[in-house]
Amino acid sequence: LLLTVVLASSGAGSVFAQPPDDERAQPDERVSVAILVFDGVQIIDFTAPWEIFGQAHFQIFSVSPGGEAVTTSMGMHLTPDYGFANAPHADVLLVPGGHVHDLQADPEALDWIRRTSEAAEQVLSVCNGAFLLAEAGLLDGGTATTFHGLLDSFEVSFPRVHLVRDQRYTDNGKVLTSAGLSSGIDASLYLVSKLRGMDQARALALHLEYNWDPHTTFARGAMADRHIPNVPIHLPDGAELHEISSLGDKDSWVARWSVEPRLEPRAVVGAFAKALAEIPGWKATGEPGPSGMNWRFSTENDGAWRLALTVTDGEDRQIVSATLERNP
Amino acid sequence: LLLTVVLASSGAGSVFAQPPDDERAQPDERVSVAILVFDGVQIIDFTAPWEIFGQAHFQIFSVSPGGEAVTTSMGMHLTPDYGFANAPHADVLLVPGGHVHDLQADPEALDWIRRTSEAAEQVLSVCNGAFLLAEAGLLDGGTATTFHGLLDSFEVSFPRVHLVRDQRYTDNGKVLTSAGLSSGIDASLYLVSKLRGMDQARALALHLEYNWDPHTTFARGAMADRHIPNVPIHLPDGAELHEISSLGDKDSWVARWSVEPRLEPRAVVGAFAKALAEIPGWKATGEPGPSGMNWRFSTENDGAWRLALTVTDGEDRQIVSATLERNP
Repeated sequence: LLLTVVLASSGAGSVFAQPPDDERAQPDERVSVAILVFDGVQIIDFTAPWEIFGQAHFQIFSVSPGGEAVTTSMGMHLTPDYGFANAPHADVLLVPGGHVHDLQADPEALDWIRRTSEAAEQVLSVCNGAFLLAEAGLLDGGTATTFHGLLDSFEVSFPRVHLVRDQRYTDNGKVLTSAGLSSGIDASLYLVSKLRGMDQARALALHLEYNWDPHTTFARGAMADRHIPNVPIHLPDGAELHEISSLGDKDSWVARWSVEPRLEPRAVVGAFAKALAEIPGWKATGEPGPSGMNWRFSTENDGAWRLALTVTDGEDRQIVSATLERNP
Repeated sequence: LLLTVVLASSGAGSVFAQPPDDERAQPDERVSVAILVFDGVQIIDFTAPWEIFGQAHFQIFSVSPGGEAVTTSMGMHLTPDYGFANAPHADVLLVPGGHVHDLQADPEALDWIRRTSEAAEQVLSVCNGAFLLAEAGLLDGGTATTFHGLLDSFEVSFPRVHLVRDQRYTDNGKVLTSAGLSSGIDASLYLVSKLRGMDQARALALHLEYNWDPHTTFARGAMADRHIPNVPIHLPDGAELHEISSLGDKDSWVARWSVEPRLEPRAVVGAFAKALAEIPGWKATGEPGPSGMNWRFSTENDGAWRLALTVTDGEDRQIVSATLERNP
């Protein structure tokens, strides 16, 4: 036993690097974790939890519907340990997101998720894996969150689930859901803290060199761009918008596009004005000017927001900027 | 084209969840990325970068030495796209960590890493993957960092490399190294910012719902426990220490163990005192008392630190706590 307990590192003179496995004493009883995988499963959704649960000395196995090899999003080829037919009992079920479309319409898959969840102590979805849990009925009457780009869709699809937009994960006691992609890291650390205590979860995060804030208020779904309506913009004369950036936080958002080919600035602003005029709750103030205009609109729950639009003619390209801010 | 540009989400009425792929316009020229995989490769070291580079629309393929299937740390079974013999050109080479032992002693592997790096624009190691780059000579005269538990070992093994302990990643222009495990997330986002600009990298982090701080000063290797000497503690009468927690930050560290079976508190403190007495630079002050003692020691670069040791007899177990703090 060494006083340096976080890692029993190799002797200082060794030329070989030992792997960064965590060598702390493991509990007598290992938690078993089933990870559902399928074609198009999102890589980080299940691999980050795999790493975290593995470092916590949980015993992990993967399950694809028929036990067949799968290819993840972005082309990683994975051979699972089991299929639905022969997967053993799991204390924890992890349901990642990605191309969940087929499974969501597959009664056998939903049945396996239901049965495995019933026998498990904890169930965690990551990203749009929440759609699978919801479709299986496991979130009825509970709270859930999901990938920020699918919050609206989830809310419409599953009216019996209370959707949360401003949390990185939700916990209904047995069934947990996390927001999109990297949110699974925080949700997995939280799950370790539930099963092994906060000290172990904190030590694990440090071992992973992850700057974990268990009390984070970071929630992608609560950022200001949720107030930007999902409306097509039709520019005249075959011109197109090409995104340059789309950045912000809870209180403001700035999106910028190039306009190709260039248009009269008034024509660009006019196209946005026309599209936005069709959205209830939006009220345009001011006329489209030579290089921009302002709109005001209000939302029911979050007070008033203002959208300002500016067209800039640079040397090499024309740029339109949309700035969304809380109305002062 | 939609005003909401971060994600072209599915229609609000759809019951099917669309996957969280990033649908922003992709550049004409795709960056190709080769990811080295091998038996015991650390999962998060290569899968988190895979997700990030994939979301950046880089074209990713994986390479194992002979093109054979590999099993990662914690048992994920992966079939790579290529072997060393037939891997195509890569603009970016990613060298993850894990059980790098065999490859580090394999001239063919080191040769492939050298040749692939030579042809690449950027090379990034994650965790103890830095040992492979260093062994291949790619870090000679440059800076590097690695998994926090292997910093000392790396420094001794590769005296021609300037080791950095207080950064999440290093950049030598072409060859980058990141610290342990989750550090690869930040290093990959940084690499995207180099190749695609900061706006795209920031948008990508938001898309991934990752609370990215490009200017983070979080560095596991710079935390206070680096001053805790790596020394075995021999308790009398066959008693053993079992770690309860080991937590801290840059300025302090607290480690706690249970002592099983119980000993006289004086015997516990004495065992620590005996072990620490053999470490140069440590100076014990005060005698081992009934429930604790203090040591003072100083280090050359970081000023003086104090270690206080306390033994507490609880109802169900005996606990020894070591608290390391900067000397006021």
